Amino acid sequence: MTEQLFILDEIPGVLWTPEDTHGTRPLILMGHGGGQHKKAPGILARAHRFAAERGFAVAATDVPHHGGRPRDQEFDRLATEYRARMAAGEETAGLDTALYTLVVGQTIAEWQTVLTAVQQLDHIGGRPVGYWGVSLGCALGIPFVAAEPRVRAAVLGLQGAPVLAGTAAQITVPVHFLVQRDDERIPRAQSQALFDAIGSAEKTLHANPGKHGDLPRFEMDDSLRFFARHLG
Amino acid sequence: MTEQLFILDEIPGVLWTPEDTHGTRPLILMGHGGGQHKKAPGILARAHRFAAERGFAVAATDVPHHGGRPRDQEFDRLATEYRARMAAGEETAGLDTALYTLVVGQTIAEWQTVLTAVQQLDHIGGRPVGYWGVSLGCALGIPFVAAEPRVRAAVLGLQGAPVLAGTAAQITVPVHFLVQRDDERIPRAQSQALFDAIGSAEKTLHANPGKHGDLPRFEMDDSLRFFARHLG
Repeated sequence: MTEQLFILDEIPGVLWTPEDTHGTRPLILMGHGGGQHKKAPGILARAHRFAAERGFAVAATDVPHHGGRPRDQEFDRLATEYRARMAAGEETAGLDTALYTLVVGQTIAEWQTVLTAVQQLDHIGGRPVGYWGVSLGCALGIPFVAAEPRVRAAVLGLQGAPVLAGTAAQITVPVHFLVQRDDERIPRAQSQALFDAIGSAEKTLHANPGKHGDLPRFEMDDSLRFFARHLG
Repeated sequence: MTEQLFILDEIPGVLWTPEDTHGTRPLILMGHGGGQHKKAPGILARAHRFAAERGFAVAATDVPHHGGRPRDQEFDRLATEYRARMAAGEETAGLDTALYTLVVGQTIAEWQTVLTAVQQLDHIGGRPVGYWGVSLGCALGIPFVAAEPRVRAAVLGLQGAPVLAGTAAQITVPVHFLVQRDDERIPRAQSQALFDAIGSAEKTLHANPGKHGDLPRFEMDDSLRFFARHLG
């Protein structure tokens, strides 16, 4: 697998492609979680398998205020409060929405820019695109997938913010939605309601025991096969 | 694929095996739904794929009072009332439990007898066993899987009877649990609660839009891979 770091219009990103770069290939864009970055362990592990086992290309960027990107005061203040509340076991849903609101518009525009640039490459091309993102990556992914016709399938989940329901209803592509039954951050009823709100005729919820960070490894296999089925 | 009908101690059954019968193979026992029988279309379609694609053997029997088996008056009375209530869109949960109670003890004993006999065959042998059953096949499957140490993985679902929770807690093998979000027979909260009651450390709920009878075809792929992963 080849890993290519890039900076495009001040967006730091990374593109992984399989060694054998003969012909074009489907591209998966991955959105990282809150406080993470484009090469967080979960992103990296998925990118490796998606490229090695199915020959997909995988791209990820640092979301604004994440990874190596500059932070502004407002974001820092909210993020500090978020961590304090998490540590105290307090409700964080309102802060989640505030943090999301700070970055969502810019992130969607950046992902569209990256998609356009990456699809110019001879060994990627204009094939169908998949989106993978949970937690913050789902909050940002829902409006991105709803807005972006190049995306033909999406893995989402670990999210339940009611503010997302209206946008989720505009999604029409097949969706895998991941739920952790013992998620300490997302109330069960809210994640169920967000899944129900998704407009797609084909959508599957996969729920497993465990906390927010405990997605079982076999869900990675299922994501891979889901993309293989829909992106061919 | 070879289809072999048998009658064992008055239990009518069927065994499907792949054409290539070299060596032993994992066995999947399938329990049919209420009002169905051992060669119902869903059972047959799964048996074909499980044998053809993974080389599994698949066995099914007619549950007491189903298929070609004699019915008694009490069962007939309850089944008639059940169909009438279904047609009228009325609550059927109490009758479900009554019908289940009439057959559960005998069914488990019969499945254990069939398992023992089938595993004597040279081309089956004593390899790990899987169980697949939804709706009535889940109601009967839960106590069977809980009681039967030869079963190492189970696909269950389309069921939520609270009476099953205690037995479900005794299950320890990996479980796939199928839920239809628009199931007209199983209240959402009840199927969630039954999934939560299952004692297994590894258990995954797969929920899709659609009614009781509308399981999407791709869930068959997932069941197949689930068994392949656990029965090797």
